[in-house]
Amino acid sequence: MGKNGRMARVQPLSGFPEWTPQERLVEAHVIATLRDVFSLHGFGEIETRVVEPVERLAGDSDASKEIYAIGRLNADEQAGREAKLGLHFDLTVPFARYVEENQGRLQFPFRRFQIQKVWRGERPQEGRFREFYQADIDVVGRDRLPEHLEAEVAIVMARALAALPLPPARMHLNNRGLVEGFYRGVGIVDVAGALRSVDKLDKIGPEGVTEELHGKGVSAEAIHAILELAAIQTPDSSFVDLVEALWDHSPIVEGADEARAQFEAGARSLAVLVDAVNAAVPECAIADLRIARGLDYYTGAVYETLLEGHEDLGSICSGGRYDSLIAGGGFPGVGMSIGVSRLVSRMLGAGLATASRAVPQAVLVAVTDEEHRAASSAIADRLRARGIPTEVSPNAAKFGKQIQYADRRGIPFVWFPDAGDGTSLDGEVKDIRSGEQTPADADAWAPPTEDLNPRIVRG
Amino acid sequence: MGKNGRMARVQPLSGFPEWTPQERLVEAHVIATLRDVFSLHGFGEIETRVVEPVERLAGDSDASKEIYAIGRLNADEQAGREAKLGLHFDLTVPFARYVEENQGRLQFPFRRFQIQKVWRGERPQEGRFREFYQADIDVVGRDRLPEHLEAEVAIVMARALAALPLPPARMHLNNRGLVEGFYRGVGIVDVAGALRSVDKLDKIGPEGVTEELHGKGVSAEAIHAILELAAIQTPDSSFVDLVEALWDHSPIVEGADEARAQFEAGARSLAVLVDAVNAAVPECAIADLRIARGLDYYTGAVYETLLEGHEDLGSICSGGRYDSLIAGGGFPGVGMSIGVSRLVSRMLGAGLATASRAVPQAVLVAVTDEEHRAASSAIADRLRARGIPTEVSPNAAKFGKQIQYADRRGIPFVWFPDAGDGTSLDGEVKDIRSGEQTPADADAWAPPTEDLNPRIVRG
Repeated sequence: MGKNGRMARVQPLSGFPEWTPQERLVEAHVIATLRDVFSLHGFGEIETRVVEPVERLAGDSDASKEIYAIGRLNADEQAGREAKLGLHFDLTVPFARYVEENQGRLQFPFRRFQIQKVWRGERPQEGRFREFYQADIDVVGRDRLPEHLEAEVAIVMARALAALPLPPARMHLNNRGLVEGFYRGVGIVDVAGALRSVDKLDKIGPEGVTEELHGKGVSAEAIHAILELAAIQTPDSSFVDLVEALWDHSPIVEGADEARAQFEAGARSLAVLVDAVNAAVPECAIADLRIARGLDYYTGAVYETLLEGHEDLGSICSGGRYDSLIAGGGFPGVGMSIGVSRLVSRMLGAGLATASRAVPQAVLVAVTDEEHRAASSAIADRLRARGIPTEVSPNAAKFGKQIQYADRRGIPFVWFPDAGDGTSLDGEVKDIRSGEQTPADADAWAPPTEDLNPRIVRG
Repeated sequence: MGKNGRMARVQPLSGFPEWTPQERLVEAHVIATLRDVFSLHGFGEIETRVVEPVERLAGDSDASKEIYAIGRLNADEQAGREAKLGLHFDLTVPFARYVEENQGRLQFPFRRFQIQKVWRGERPQEGRFREFYQADIDVVGRDRLPEHLEAEVAIVMARALAALPLPPARMHLNNRGLVEGFYRGVGIVDVAGALRSVDKLDKIGPEGVTEELHGKGVSAEAIHAILELAAIQTPDSSFVDLVEALWDHSPIVEGADEARAQFEAGARSLAVLVDAVNAAVPECAIADLRIARGLDYYTGAVYETLLEGHEDLGSICSGGRYDSLIAGGGFPGVGMSIGVSRLVSRMLGAGLATASRAVPQAVLVAVTDEEHRAASSAIADRLRARGIPTEVSPNAAKFGKQIQYADRRGIPFVWFPDAGDGTSLDGEVKDIRSGEQTPADADAWAPPTEDLNPRIVRG
C-alpha cells in the first residue's frame, strides 16, 4: 500500500510456514481429502472460534504452557472488563467448550471433524511450527460410548492417511486400563506421574526413565517390570499372552485384585481394537505397550501413528479415549488428531507430492490485439462454462511472448482466436509442451482430463 | 477434559460466530463455490500466516485501530526480543508482505485468491463480527497493470456472488481519478480528507458532510458541486455527459487543466469499466459517483456492492485499484474483497439458504446384534467405496430405535442387513421419509443423486 512509508525488508517469521501457490495446492489437496474421507464415514464438520478464555486453555499439557494471549492494542476501559483471551493450541479444548455450550442442540453420539489452524508459542529454534493446521475427528456420547467406536475412529484415520500421498502409516495402539492396572499391580501409586516418565522413553531412553522413576520413589523391581511391559509390541492380539505371562512373573503387591481386573479388561479391549483395525486396514495396527500419551485424561484406547521411513517426525496422528469431554462429566468420547502442517511440510520437503502446475488455469486465450480482447474473453467464457479453468492473456504482445507467459506459469494450452472479424468462437489450440497445434471450437474442445486441473503427483 | 475442575457455565463470546454442523455446511458451500469460481478464472490460492508485525498493521484505516496484539502468556527473555505481533485485520496487508517477500519467486501479473479469517477488536455492541472470513482476489503487476483488469476482477466477483444463494448483487463503480480531478478542479486541496467526508454520506447525510467539509475550510460552492457529483448515478456510461455538464457549470479554479485531464481520463476509464462489467454480467454494474472508499491508496477504479433487499448490510464486496501494493512502489494492482461471514450470517438468519440435512451421511446401516456388527460394517464399506457417505449404527437397539436415530439426524436411508449368516451384502433399504422399503445389494444400490450429499437449498 505504501501507506506506511518505506520499511525494513520483510523477514519470514520463524515457525509460521507459508507456501507458494503451487505448494498450497498440495496443502489444499490434503485438507480436501481428509474432509472427503471424514464425510464419507459420517462425520460432520464444525469450526470453532480461534480464541478461548485463558483459564480454559491453562492446564498440564506442554501445549498449554505455550499459549499466545491476545488483547486489543488500543484497549480502553471496555476491554479491561473483558475476559482474557488466548489462541487455541489444539482443537480439543474448543471442541469441549462447543459441546458444553451446544449440548441441548446436538445429537449424541456426536460425530464431528474439525480442520483448523492452531497456535503454540514454542521456541522457533526447535524447528517446530508455531502456527499449523490440525485435523481432528471425535465421537462423543452422552453418558455412554460403545467401545467399538475406539476401532472406528482409528479405521477412519487409517483410511484418511492411506488416501494421502504418503508412505504407509503404522498405528501403535495401547490401552490405558491395561497399563494402569499393571502399574497399580506392581505397587505404583502415582500412575499418572509414571506414565509421563514412560512417555519420554524415546527421548531419554530406559536409563533416563529409570532415573526419573527412581526419583519418584518407584522400586527397582517395579521399574524393571514396567520397562518390560513397555517393550512388548505385537502386530496382532498375541500380546495378550505376553502381558499375562509378564504379570505372573512380576512383583505384584498384595490385594491387587481390582488392578488385575482393570489390567485384564484393558488387554481384552486392546486385543479387540488391534484385530478390528487390522481387519479393516490390513497390517496397519500394532499393539505397542510403550504408548503412554502424556495427557492425564485418557482412560481407554490410546493411539500414536508413525510414518514408514519418516519416523523422525514422531507421531503424525494421535489420540485416545477419555471419560468426559467436559468438566461436569457425562460426555465420554474418543478422538484422534492429525498434525496436517507437519505432514504437508514433509510431503513438500521430501518430494512426496507436488502439484503438476502452479496455477489453476489449463488454458491461456491469446489476444490478437486490444481491439479484439472481447473475442478472447468470449472464448474463455465458453471454456469456463464447461468447467475449464481459463485466463485471457493480460496483454496483446506477439504470440511468442504470450506463449512464454503461459510457459512460465505452467499453463499447458494456448488458444489462438480466429483472425476474421473477432466474433468467432473457433481458433487453434496449442499444447505448448508438445508444440502440437490443432483447430478447435470453444464450445467443444476440452483438454485431456489429466490436464484439466492441477494434479497432485506422488513423488 | 475435566482437567480444570468444574467451571462457570460457558458463555458465547460476542462477535465470534460459531455455526452448528448444519449451518457450517452452508458456510463451507460458500467457500467452496468462491474457490471454484476464482480457480475457473485463473486465480491461484495462497494462505498467509495470521500474524504480522504490529508496525506493519498500523495505519489510517478504521480496521487498523482495532488490532488484536498477541504475545506469549509465559514470556521469557527470548520473547522480549521478538517483534510485537498482531492478528491481521484484512487480507491485503499480509498479501502485500507476501508479495514483497516472495517477489523473486512469483510471476507477474500475479493473480491470487485468499480465503481466511481476519480479526478486528470492534465493540461487540455494534453487532459486528470480531472474527470473520474474508475472500479476496487481486491481480498485481510489476511496474504496470493493464486497465482491463479493473473490469476482470469485478466480473469475476460478480459471477462469484451470482453463484451463491443470494438475491442479485449490484456493483456500484466509481473512479478515483475522476473524483480527484473534479475535487481539484473546484479548488479542494485536501482531496483525501474530502473523500473521507463524502464516504460518510450514507451515515451522516448531505448536511453532515457539508458541516464536515465546511469545518475543513471547503467553500460552500465547492461543497455544493461535490455533493452534486456524488448524486450522479447511471446504469451505464451515460454518466459521462452528466459529469461533463456538471464540470462546465461548477466553480472551477484557475489553471485546472491538469485536474481536467485527470477528470476526463477517469471518466473514460469508468465508462469502459461499467460497460465491460454489464456486457459480461447484464445489469450488474452502476456508475455511482458517490462511491469514495475511505482508504487513501486507491488510484483508479473503486467498487462497492449492495445486495438487493439487503442494503442494510452495507457493501458486501469492495475494493479498488492501487498504485503499489508495497512501500517501495512498483507493484500496481487491483483487488476486491467479500465479507464472507456477514454474508453467511445473513443467508442463515434470513433463510436464504439451508443445508438439506445436518450430517453428511446418506445411509445408516442398522446393526442386528453386536455379534453381527462386522456384517454391517462390510456393507457400509461397500457403499462408501462408491462414494456414498454412510454410518454404521452405534448400537444394536430395536430397529425402531435405530430408525429414530437416523430420523433425528436427518439421515434419509436406513439399511437393514440380511438376517442369514451375517456375511451377506444384501439387505433391505428404507427411505424413512416415505416409509418405502426395497431389497438392495450393497454393491449396486445408490440413493437418488439429490440425497447423496447434503444439498444447499435456496430459501
